[in-house]
Amino acid sequence: MAVQTAATTTDPATVDLGPATALSCRECGHRVPLGPVFACEECFGPLEIAYDFSAYDTEELRKRIEAGPANIWRYAPLLPVPADVATKPNINPGWTKLVQADNLARELGVTGGLYVKDDSGNPTHSFKDRVVAQAVEAARAFGYTTLSCSSTGNLAGAVGAAAARAGFRSCVFIPHDLEQGKIVMAAIYGGELVGIEGNYDDVNRFCSELIGDSAGEGWGFVNVNLRPYYAEGSKTLAYEICEQLGWRIPDQLVVPIASGSQLTKIDKGLQELIKLGLVEDRPYKIFGAQAEGCSPVSVAYKAGHDVVRPQKPNTIAKSLAIGNPADGPYVLDIARRTGGAVEDVTDEQVVDAIKLLARTEGIFAETAGGVTVGVTRKLIENGQIDPSKSVVVLNTGDGLKTLDAVAGTGLTATIRPTLDSFREAGLA
Amino acid sequence: MAVQTAATTTDPATVDLGPATALSCRECGHRVPLGPVFACEECFGPLEIAYDFSAYDTEELRKRIEAGPANIWRYAPLLPVPADVATKPNINPGWTKLVQADNLARELGVTGGLYVKDDSGNPTHSFKDRVVAQAVEAARAFGYTTLSCSSTGNLAGAVGAAAARAGFRSCVFIPHDLEQGKIVMAAIYGGELVGIEGNYDDVNRFCSELIGDSAGEGWGFVNVNLRPYYAEGSKTLAYEICEQLGWRIPDQLVVPIASGSQLTKIDKGLQELIKLGLVEDRPYKIFGAQAEGCSPVSVAYKAGHDVVRPQKPNTIAKSLAIGNPADGPYVLDIARRTGGAVEDVTDEQVVDAIKLLARTEGIFAETAGGVTVGVTRKLIENGQIDPSKSVVVLNTGDGLKTLDAVAGTGLTATIRPTLDSFREAGLA
Repeated sequence: MAVQTAATTTDPATVDLGPATALSCRECGHRVPLGPVFACEECFGPLEIAYDFSAYDTEELRKRIEAGPANIWRYAPLLPVPADVATKPNINPGWTKLVQADNLARELGVTGGLYVKDDSGNPTHSFKDRVVAQAVEAARAFGYTTLSCSSTGNLAGAVGAAAARAGFRSCVFIPHDLEQGKIVMAAIYGGELVGIEGNYDDVNRFCSELIGDSAGEGWGFVNVNLRPYYAEGSKTLAYEICEQLGWRIPDQLVVPIASGSQLTKIDKGLQELIKLGLVEDRPYKIFGAQAEGCSPVSVAYKAGHDVVRPQKPNTIAKSLAIGNPADGPYVLDIARRTGGAVEDVTDEQVVDAIKLLARTEGIFAETAGGVTVGVTRKLIENGQIDPSKSVVVLNTGDGLKTLDAVAGTGLTATIRPTLDSFREAGLA
Repeated sequence: MAVQTAATTTDPATVDLGPATALSCRECGHRVPLGPVFACEECFGPLEIAYDFSAYDTEELRKRIEAGPANIWRYAPLLPVPADVATKPNINPGWTKLVQADNLARELGVTGGLYVKDDSGNPTHSFKDRVVAQAVEAARAFGYTTLSCSSTGNLAGAVGAAAARAGFRSCVFIPHDLEQGKIVMAAIYGGELVGIEGNYDDVNRFCSELIGDSAGEGWGFVNVNLRPYYAEGSKTLAYEICEQLGWRIPDQLVVPIASGSQLTKIDKGLQELIKLGLVEDRPYKIFGAQAEGCSPVSVAYKAGHDVVRPQKPNTIAKSLAIGNPADGPYVLDIARRTGGAVEDVTDEQVVDAIKLLARTEGIFAETAGGVTVGVTRKLIENGQIDPSKSVVVLNTGDGLKTLDAVAGTGLTATIRPTLDSFREAGLA
């Protein structure tokens, strides 16, 4: 199996990715040196980063983090990046606001503290900046010159922006008939933006071919051959939430599910903080959120299955529309192990939740944020979330990117420019 | 003259706005108590906030600021807000990135250090969040219950979001035929969004009528009767730039001009930092940037005039399209006093500059950011900006809000999903 792909001539011994020591198979534990590989040569399981954190003193580490920059690099000691990462050109995402959402809490009846982790504050306004930033550092370490991905939205912009700033060539593949607005958001950074005559599956199939071919030499596909590094970026959400709560794990977290990778990495991040002694080891529940129109993990969860049956997505929550989520089984595991759940909401509920969050907290979320807020409301109503305990809800993107979903929102009145007309409209 | 408008029953003696002690006329120095007034009763000049900073010890103040929150409230001791402002519900803008723009510097030949102050990182992705946040605290102090404004864009969203979070009713007036996307961005926060049958001038005229009428009782118009407070928010740009440079004033700043208020308040902020001893008193030059299609200040500057002749705006930089800028004469003063200049660029140059910034630094700016970057390039070319000295360029908004301006940006290639097609396109 050609898992070592898009080879570079980098010697693994010279790769400096900080505390990262090897790649380890999530299924069988087989280890290989750090490199641009993503699947285990023994069992085809996904490879993850293995770290050596043994030298860290808890209090020194905490101080080092707290004195670090106001972005993800404050956690450089816990990420697969060199120690001097903050000095390199990078778009420096992270350290986004954890908003104490008291108005929303009142509406939902939450008394134990409700928080929105608002990742729309990232440079390209989605959590993708976190993961791409890791991939950039891995690409640097492995000597790649081109950053690439297939995308239908957020990832294209994140890769384009990060590559521009870091000095990489970028080449992003998208379906050729994407909406013009999304094309502009990806094209503005000046990299290659290639329309593929076909649907998103065709784009992905083509990218897999390219990775295995000599034409893809020197190319780092952020979420394929750089995936083990890329995925670690999601851990920073867990780190930030806990640090922003005063180094405390919240009782309950509601996380969107696309591939499921973000949820599994948030759990990994929490476990690391516990092992490092940075937070108290206390129970927490992780809840997964999907849109009904793409709910393979939610369906499996409710049916009590361990495997996830693929679906053909049909939802306005396009950034979550992965019908065959690679990390679905791990998500089921984590939801069950922590006492959480996986739930889904209709597109109508997604729109309602976007409006609810905007109206109560002034946060305009992408459809994915509508999914998590909507699922939170549903889980409170059905008793699976305990409103007397703390809840953190993730908003992973910005409403400006999915304006179409709320296009019906409009003027509340139209008047002539006179006081009489104003009074008639009952606005005084 | 009915300058005391939209009256509330608040007793000035009970108003706690921190170090703010009075309102002072910029023209004649006449003082009045803190209240919802904006024009001098003696000479009709603009009222500004007067402060008492006399009790501050420089080093204590510096430490207090540095230990403060990662938003504008770290500067609460220097703003017209109560000391406990950070504990109140507010969207907490500011502390946006100052990006060291080495790639852009290379393109422009700047060797003295080039930085982009990127205010697209604010909650609603424009600098307006800074000023609205001040108006919210003034509205709270004066007992207002409705926040209002006239707007064609960024301000509407900023007011809607801030009011939602802070628990105010909001009522925003816009021309009824605004683009649907802009209506959605303003309407999503659930306040009243009223379309006025007329153009922006009609909207403004109507708002002035409303302020003077009993129907407007209890209404705080952020940029009219709350304007002295509102405008102070722009000082925080100066504070942040200096603190982020290690408490140092840059040699040169390039600031966009709409009403001109932002530029004058940045100068005020720098002067305050000097007087407080927080930065060294060294020369700096402030440059104003306009679009050619709305360049009344630039035209006056080049003609050596002290007064600004109004223009009818016609430019893609709509957030800067104020044809009769209230603070124009003050801008001319500051540009001349500091040895700066005022310059303008064509819409084509604005688009080129947006693309240049995105391609070099991964920052997707609003048209206003295209104006400042374009003007910076022009001023370097014509020798008015010294490239061997430091330059800070402001980007005050987000490209996602003005996608139309760069709608021509698109795919660099379209291919079939095959390696042959990829090779034929010369992408390898």
